[in-house]
Parts: sequence; structure tokens; C-alpha cells
Amino acid sequence: MVQLGLVGLGKMGFNMRARLREAGHDVVGYDRNPEVSDTGSLAELVQKLDAPRAVWIMVPAGEPTRQTVHELGELLSDGDLVIDGGNSRFTDDKANAAHLATKKIGYLDVGVSGGVWGLANGYGLMVGGDAEQVERVMPIFDALRPEGPREEGFAHAGSVGAGHFAKMVHNGIEYGLMQAYAEGFELLDASEMVTDVPAVIKAWQRGTVVRSWLLDLLVKALDEDPELDDLTGYVEDSGEGRWTVEEAINHAVPAPVISAALFARFASRQTNSPAMRAVAALRNQFGGHAVHKAGPSAGN
Amino acid sequence: MVQLGLVGLGKMGFNMRARLREAGHDVVGYDRNPEVSDTGSLAELVQKLDAPRAVWIMVPAGEPTRQTVHELGELLSDGDLVIDGGNSRFTDDKANAAHLATKKIGYLDVGVSGGVWGLANGYGLMVGGDAEQVERVMPIFDALRPEGPREEGFAHAGSVGAGHFAKMVHNGIEYGLMQAYAEGFELLDASEMVTDVPAVIKAWQRGTVVRSWLLDLLVKALDEDPELDDLTGYVEDSGEGRWTVEEAINHAVPAPVISAALFARFASRQTNSPAMRAVAALRNQFGGHAVHKAGPSAGN
Amino acid sequence: MVQLGLVGLGKMGFNMRARLREAGHDVVGYDRNPEVSDTGSLAELVQKLDAPRAVWIMVPAGEPTRQTVHELGELLSDGDLVIDGGNSRFTDDKANAAHLATKKIGYLDVGVSGGVWGLANGYGLMVGGDAEQVERVMPIFDALRPEGPREEGFAHAGSVGAGHFAKMVHNGIEYGLMQAYAEGFELLDASEMVTDVPAVIKAWQRGTVVRSWLLDLLVKALDEDPELDDLTGYVEDSGEGRWTVEEAINHAVPAPVISAALFARFASRQTNSPAMRAVAALRNQFGGHAVHKAGPSAGN
Amino acid sequence: MVQLGLVGLGKMGFNMRARLREAGHDVVGYDRNPEVSDTGSLAELVQKLDAPRAVWIMVPAGEPTRQTVHELGELLSDGDLVIDGGNSRFTDDKANAAHLATKKIGYLDVGVSGGVWGLANGYGLMVGGDAEQVERVMPIFDALRPEGPREEGFAHAGSVGAGHFAKMVHNGIEYGLMQAYAEGFELLDASEMVTDVPAVIKAWQRGTVVRSWLLDLLVKALDEDPELDDLTGYVEDSGEGRWTVEEAINHAVPAPVISAALFARFASRQTNSPAMRAVAALRNQFGGHAVHKAGPSAGN
Repeated sequence: MVQLGLVGLGKMGFNMRARLREAGHDVVGYDRNPEVSDTGSLAELVQKLDAPRAVWIMVPAGEPTRQTVHELGELLSDGDLVIDGGNSRFTDDKANAAHLATKKIGYLDVGVSGGVWGLANGYGLMVGGDAEQVERVMPIFDALRPEGPREEGFAHAGSVGAGHFAKMVHNGIEYGLMQAYAEGFELLDASEMVTDVPAVIKAWQRGTVVRSWLLDLLVKALDEDPELDDLTGYVEDSGEGRWTVEEAINHAVPAPVISAALFARFASRQTNSPAMRAVAALRNQFGGHAVHKAGPSAGN
Repeated sequence: MVQLGLVGLGKMGFNMRARLREAGHDVVGYDRNPEVSDTGSLAELVQKLDAPRAVWIMVPAGEPTRQTVHELGELLSDGDLVIDGGNSRFTDDKANAAHLATKKIGYLDVGVSGGVWGLANGYGLMVGGDAEQVERVMPIFDALRPEGPREEGFAHAGSVGAGHFAKMVHNGIEYGLMQAYAEGFELLDASEMVTDVPAVIKAWQRGTVVRSWLLDLLVKALDEDPELDDLTGYVEDSGEGRWTVEEAINHAVPAPVISAALFARFASRQTNSPAMRAVAALRNQFGGHAVHKAGPSAGN
Repeated sequence: MVQLGLVGLGKMGFNMRARLREAGHDVVGYDRNPEVSDTGSLAELVQKLDAPRAVWIMVPAGEPTRQTVHELGELLSDGDLVIDGGNSRFTDDKANAAHLATKKIGYLDVGVSGGVWGLANGYGLMVGGDAEQVERVMPIFDALRPEGPREEGFAHAGSVGAGHFAKMVHNGIEYGLMQAYAEGFELLDASEMVTDVPAVIKAWQRGTVVRSWLLDLLVKALDEDPELDDLTGYVEDSGEGRWTVEEAINHAVPAPVISAALFARFASRQTNSPAMRAVAALRNQFGGHAVHKAGPSAGN
Repeated sequence: MVQLGLVGLGKMGFNMRARLREAGHDVVGYDRNPEVSDTGSLAELVQKLDAPRAVWIMVPAGEPTRQTVHELGELLSDGDLVIDGGNSRFTDDKANAAHLATKKIGYLDVGVSGGVWGLANGYGLMVGGDAEQVERVMPIFDALRPEGPREEGFAHAGSVGAGHFAKMVHNGIEYGLMQAYAEGFELLDASEMVTDVPAVIKAWQRGTVVRSWLLDLLVKALDEDPELDDLTGYVEDSGEGRWTVEEAINHAVPAPVISAALFARFASRQTNSPAMRAVAALRNQFGGHAVHKAGPSAGN
């Protein structure tokens, strides 16, 4: 049994506390929301832990995480450990680690995959930092990760930042996978010959090259809504796809598929794209037509 | 002075007849629309021409052009020449030429660029077929093409089909160019720093690397409508872009830019993309949310 | 127990015969290669079957399949059934079915996925044609498909052609999925922080959003060759990816990801791309440099 | 006649000094290279100018420019003006301007296009900063820009940073334009019908939709080397293309064409892409083949 402080009990943190407790670990959670929090403050959380302490942060990336790291830096002591399991950009990790190192507090960054399914299935974990620190909280990782061989759901990816970098790439890939299935779905849907699109996609679940967990989810979605018309085709993005393309650019790695998937999301949110208005305007100009509201067809 | 039959007096053919007559050529035009036609029928047009005859077809691509070729095959004689100047797919040319060859009628295919501006500026011409036949109607080509050195507005591109192939590629490039400007326009528009987007684009007309006729047209469009908001971002495509990508595929030529420009047009015409609904559905599934109309954000 | 003629005993057909026989079916195989063939000729194969016969074709797509269909058309009789399980383009199916229909011979097209793994795991099956004919050979489909619920490894996708259309889309998606993983792999590989790329990818096998059979294969490949440097980055394509993009174009379906994956393969096979020579030439021109072998950097 | 200090007399600065002097302006140049420099040091340059001074920086972007700004901050006085005409990232401008503002020194950022052709043709100029400062050095801008209406070669784009932002977008567009022509060139080259590719491209110079300065340069390149085989297809990138895609991502602007052009350059520099090795490895895995050096074809 290992003791862990857990800051942030939202959708992810709440479930992780439950999974850790189920595995017998002693989790002290803190959240601004008193209905879910075990303690009244971050200071109280720290007081409730025995040194050397380990505190896992599971709050929104960016400013909230940075602020929590700094607050913990004030509250924790030499030999303690902070773990950032949120969706932080890997570029934040070095600064966080360096800040805490001045107080001899250790730091690990963990990319956590699995969403709401993680409570039952376990979470895929990618960790960055020193091997010694990783070893120290391995029982926590073992409780969070899925059952089966450790190396199939957990990796010590490399030095500080590597965990979030690996998770970022994971999510970038995810964008590409989702878009590939989506394009295929639309093309099946457009075919006059294929009369049962959900049946085709369901039949891909066994024996085919494209079988995957995402495919299973698509089958589930089609079971609930065979035309997917309870939804609109407006798709958010949450940062990691953008960062993946930016890192691809920084490393001169061609990323045509991941970037296309990202741009498809951007375009999905536009109702009247300035770029396409410009194309329409150009077609009007060389076609010599008067400008119309509906972007008329122009010969060229 | 050369004599030419001209079938099809629409937007393009009508202007071409005017430009040819201005150059002193004897053009006999036929169109279904009696208001613009010089003759009452295709047969009458053929009768009015002296052998050996040259008849230029300027009707819509596909069935209308193929039908006109066949009708002319019945009406023309050994030694006559048919020129298809429409937007035919190059794959039609070999069949047309072979059909006419059985009657010893020659065939040229001509890709014609310039739109409504061609009347005043001349038309860019790309020709496929035998050099002898090309030579025979060179005065016609010289009258249609822009002033200046012949080779800067006219090319004998190769054998039958090469004219339309070259025009197809021209239009494929055009898709890419337009989309490149359009993406740049949208990005300027999105910047908080750039306060005068039309001024920037206007300033690109001289001295810059991106100056072009299309840029001049974009300036013109922005002069008329600085936000381009009289238009919607709904953009048609007229075939050549599709054919270009298909030929790129047939020849294993990577065409990421031209295809991206084509797909941007497809997407611009969708109000509720099935593909993006599928992506939204997948995000909902792994984020564990209930399905909502507005495709809610999902953690993962 | 059902009787089946099987034409083509290559990598796929050979294994399918084995799987069908294991399930107790009576398979009579024919192949040009006498070492694997059960009969000396197609005619002999037909003679060995009891009417109404069912013959499954598993030969290369295109001419070989068309020719086999026509030969079977001569040999089979009213009430027999031909099944094309090869990688035919769906556009061939209507012609094949129509040809056989003149002789009252039925026709089904089947997209078969699973590769060499199919012998052990079963094959994903997508079928096009009449429900009655599908029902008739269902025991064969049941033996070939993976264990588990029928609908998770088998679909009656629609009318003639739908089976091959669905398989084409399946493979198009496969191109996109593979490229997405590949881009992610390259980016991990390029990171200085991530020191154990194979470990990260192995850790994605459980609990993550990107887990899939293709991911399992990538793990297997990395187990055998952690840097993947026994291979060169030269990637063939086998038709379905091209067809998918062409059909996307035909249906005005945006397919930026699948096309990007296809073009990446084209580019992977080029050692000195004409397009990129043109870009290099342009940079030289406006940078004002003399032309060099190595495409020198040019300011602009 | 206006007086200007000019720091950096490389390929661009050297020509700009010449053009400005030809227009009658008094330019004092400084460069580390004494062979081209008018002064022995930056301090000497500043001494030679009459207050209020204007100093134009034309040194490499990034650290060299930042350092020059800071050195000038020490040397210049209240009321002087610094102009950064280099290829700086627009994100540097605010910091530069703020630093100089503490010393009451003004700041303008200027995007300069035109390359080596600028000496003769003039430079396209995009300026960011206060209107008052812009007005003050307008005679310099007028001398540098091409002849013709001022607004066709010069724009005051917006506030500090807008000049470099506009230039960045200009270059991003340039990437897309070049790649579009390049793809078209390769496709013409791949056609069996088109026997005279340079003639076709030359013929696009007049009357067509795709005519442009870049096209003229391509014609020039093909005149010198009709197959472009004195060059290899290895293409550098110089930053602005990357920045454009990054800004597109920051503003959620879809940029499929500009990013595709950028990635094509990245790929052109790879001899053995890790990503494509991964795709090859996957094909081997599901095709069940032993791993080969040459990435063998695999059925699926």
C-alpha cells in the first residue's frame, strides 16, 4: 500500500482516486469542489501525507497546473515528489522540474490515456523523469495501468518531459486514426451500392487489418445512432493535435496526415470560411461574373 | 485570312468569334440559340465552308462534344479538320480522333485558358495533334492567342490529347494557387496586428515573389468588397481539378497541394459533414459523454 | 458440409482451402501450379462439383479474374454461383455479374481481409449481391470468418459490387491508419527526450485510445528490429488506396488523410522528385544563385 | 534626400544601399566585412548620422538582429528610429519595440520581398508600426519599392509586428504556389502524350490563369536546363513557411496547402524516412513476409 496525494478530482482525477483505492492505496484527494474533496486545502492535503510525500496533479494544463506546482513547491519538502499527470504541454515540464529541483523536490510527468474508460480498463501511462523516482511510485502506476504485462500499458519513456511528449504524439496519432475512419465512413455513406454502412463497420471488428478500439467505439456510436445524425459535424480540438504538428515542424518531420486531421477539425467549425470566400471571389473574377451571394459557378 | 466553322457560341465561343473576326478571319458560327448563330444548322455551317474545312467545337465537355464530333463526322469529308477547343477530358480525344480518322478527317485538341478576359487579352492555347494540322490553322491560333511572342501564349504540347492534358494540369495548378492565396488571406484576416488586409495584398502586386494575375484579381475583388462578405465560402469545382488528381494517381505523382485544394472545395460545400460527425461521435465515445447536438468537447 | 470449387491457390487461396477443410467443407481447388492443385483444369474442377455448384475465384484482380469469370461462364450452368473473393475493383463486379446473369449463373463479390493471419484468425468478409445467394453459401462464410458473433466479422454490405467497395474503403482507411502511426513513430524517434521509442509504442497496447491490431503489429516489428533499419522506407501500393481516393473524388468526399497517406507512398519511391527539382529551381531563380547540384539555400 | 544608416551589407543590404544611393539618398552602411562597410563600427555609423537618426537593420533573423537592436539601443537617442528589415519572426518585434521604447527610440518592422531582383525591380515592402514613423521614412520606402503606384509595392500593414507577419504570410503563400507549379510540372513530365513540357509551361506566360512571376522564373529555369536535372530535388526551408503553419494553428486557420508544401520540402531531404520504414514494416507484418531490405510488396 502506497500513500498518494491527488490534486484535482474532476472527470479524470475522481476516477483515478477510485481505481487507486480499489487497489488498496491510501489516496488523499484535494479539489476546489468540497463535495468531492478529502481535504479543505492543499496545505491540509500535504499535512495529511507522511514524508517523503508523493503528490499527483490532475488539474487543467497550463496556468492551473503551473500554479499548483508552485504552491506545492512552497508546501512540500526535500525528498518529496510531484507528479504531473494532466495534459500539460511537455515544454512546461522542464520548467516545473527545475523549479522544484531548487527545493530538492522530485518531478515526474505522466501522460495518461484512457478517458472515462480508464476507471474500469485502466489507464495507459507514459512517464518522463528519473528512473529512481519512477521506481518509487511504481505501485501507483501498476494500480492505474490496465491489467496484463506492465510494459503493455506503461512506459518509462525518457527524461523529464518525455511522458507528456509521448502522450502528445499518442493524441496526434489519434487525430489521424479518427479522421481515417471518418473519411472511410463518409465514403461508404456516399456509395449507392453499400446499403448497410453500420453492418460493414461492425464487420470490421474481427479478422480485418483496421480493427481497433476506436473502431469498436465507432460501432458503438452507430449502434446508438445509425446515421450519426444526432450529432453535428463540429469538432473541437484540445491542444495535443496542435502541439504534435508544431513539434513535427520543429523537428522537420513530415506530418501530412496528422496535420490534415487537425485542419479538418478547424474547417468543421467554420460556417463561412474566409479562405473559401477568397477562392469563390477569384473564380468570379476570372469567370467574369458579377459577384453573387451563393458563389456561382465560373468557367475558366 | 482563314475560314473557320465555329460550333458553340456560348460565353467562350461567342467571344472567340469576335476576336477572330477582329483579326480579319472568316468565321461561320453555329449555335442552337438562333439569336447568336450564323447558320440554322450544323449541316448549313458545313455547306458554307470551302473544302478543306476546319471546324472548331466549343460546346460543353462530355456527351455534347462527343455528339458534335460524331455529327461532324457525318457532314465533313476527307481532308477536313475538327478542333475540339472545349474543356474535354483528354481521355476523350483519342476516341474522337480515331473515329474521325476512319473518315480521313483530321483532329486537334486545344486547351483554351483565359475566361472572359480572353476577348481583350487573348487566350492561352495548348494544342495536341499532328504538326501538319497544327500548322494549317496557325493563323487561327495566332489570332486567338495573346499578343507577344507566339511561344508565350501558344504551345504544340504533343500528340492527340496533349492539349487537353496540358490544360487539365494548368487548371489543377490553378486550384493550388488559388488555395494558397486563400489560406494566406484568411491568416492575415485572423491576425490582430494586420489592420489593413486589402492594403497588404495590394502591395504584393509589384516586386514580390507572389505577384501574379490571380493576385491582381484578388486585389480587384477586395477593391469591390474589402471583406469578401458579399460572397459565401461555397466553391464549385468544374472537373479539371478532379481529373488532375486522378491522373496524378495514375502516374504515381504525389499531388498533396492540388488534392488539398480540391478537397477544400468539397468540404466548403458541406453543411454537416458525415466524416466530421463520425469524429465527433468518436470523441463522445471515448470521452464518455452523452451524445449532444453540438458535438461537446471530450477529454481523452 | 458444403461443397465449394476454389480457383487460385496462392498465398490467400491456399490458406482459405485449409481453413475451409478444417471446418469440414468439401473444397475442390484448381491452380495453374499442379503442385497445389486438386484438379488438372478448370473444366475438371467444374465436373467434380455437384449442381448447383458454387465456385470461388481467388486469382489476381483485373484481367486474370475477368478471364476466369468468362471461362466459368462457359463451364457452369443455370443455377450455379460464382464468387469473386479477390481484390477486384468494384467496378468490375457489375460487368461480371451481368455477363453471368445472361447464363442464369449467380454472382457474389467478397472483400476478404486478414492476410496470412486469416488462416488462424479467420478472414473479415464483406459481401455484395443478392441475399438469397448470400444465404446459400453462408456456411462457407461462417467457416472463413473469425470466431465470435457473425456480424463482427461478416457483413452483407449491399448489392453487387458492395463487397469490393467496402473492402476498398477498408484498405483506404488502412493507409491512413498506418501513416498516422508512422508519423507518430518518426516524431518520437526525433525527440531528444524520448529515449525508448519501442517501449512507448509497446505501452500503447492496453488502455490507450490508439490501441489496435496494427499497433500490435508495429510492436511486433519493433521487437524484431527496434530501429526498423533492416528495412528501407520504400513503400509500394497495391491499388485499393488509389481507388479509394478516386471514389472519394467521384463522390465529392473530402479525403485529405487517405490521399496524404497515398501520396506519402508515392514520394517514398522517388529518389529525385521532378516536382522538388522544380521547387529547387524556383528558389535558385529568385534567390539569384547559379544552379548547383545540391539545391542550395536561397534567400527570398 | 534622406539620410539612413544601414546595418548589414550582405546579399540584400548591399543591393538596397545601391538602390537607395541611386535614388539620391545618403546611406551610411556598416558590415562586419570591411570590404563592403562604410564605417569601422556600429558606433561610428551612429556618429556619422545627424539626429534624429534612422537606422535600418538588415542582418540575419534571430540572435544577430536582437543583438543589433540592443547595441543600437545603447548608441541611439531619444527620437531616433530603428527599422528591422530582416527576416525576423514577427514575435520578436514587440520585444524589440518595447525595449527601444524605454529609451524613446522608435521602431518599425519591414517585410522585404524581391530577392536579388530587388536591385533592379524594387522591393515589395510591408511595414508594421506607428503611422508617424512610417511617414518619416517614406522617401526611403519610395526609393526601395518598385516603380508604379505606391500602394502596389508598399503597405503599412498595421501595428508593430504586422510587417513581418505579412511577409511571413507572403512566404507561406509562396511555398504553396511553388509546390502547385511543381506538382503540375511533374505530372506533365509523367505524361506520355505531352512531348514538350518546357513549351507548355512557356506558353502559360500569356493569357492563362496561372501566369505569374514565379511561372516566368520556371520558364527561365527550363530555358537553362529543360529537364531540371542539373539540380537535385532536395529543398531547404528558411523558417517563414514553418512560422506560417504555426500561426495558422494558433489561429485555427486551416492551411492544408501551405502545410503540404512545407512537408514536401521536409520529405525531399530524407533519404530513408523513419515513417515510411514504419509503413513498410507494417505491410510486412500483416502480409506475413519475412523482413527484406527493399520493403517488398505485401498482399493484404
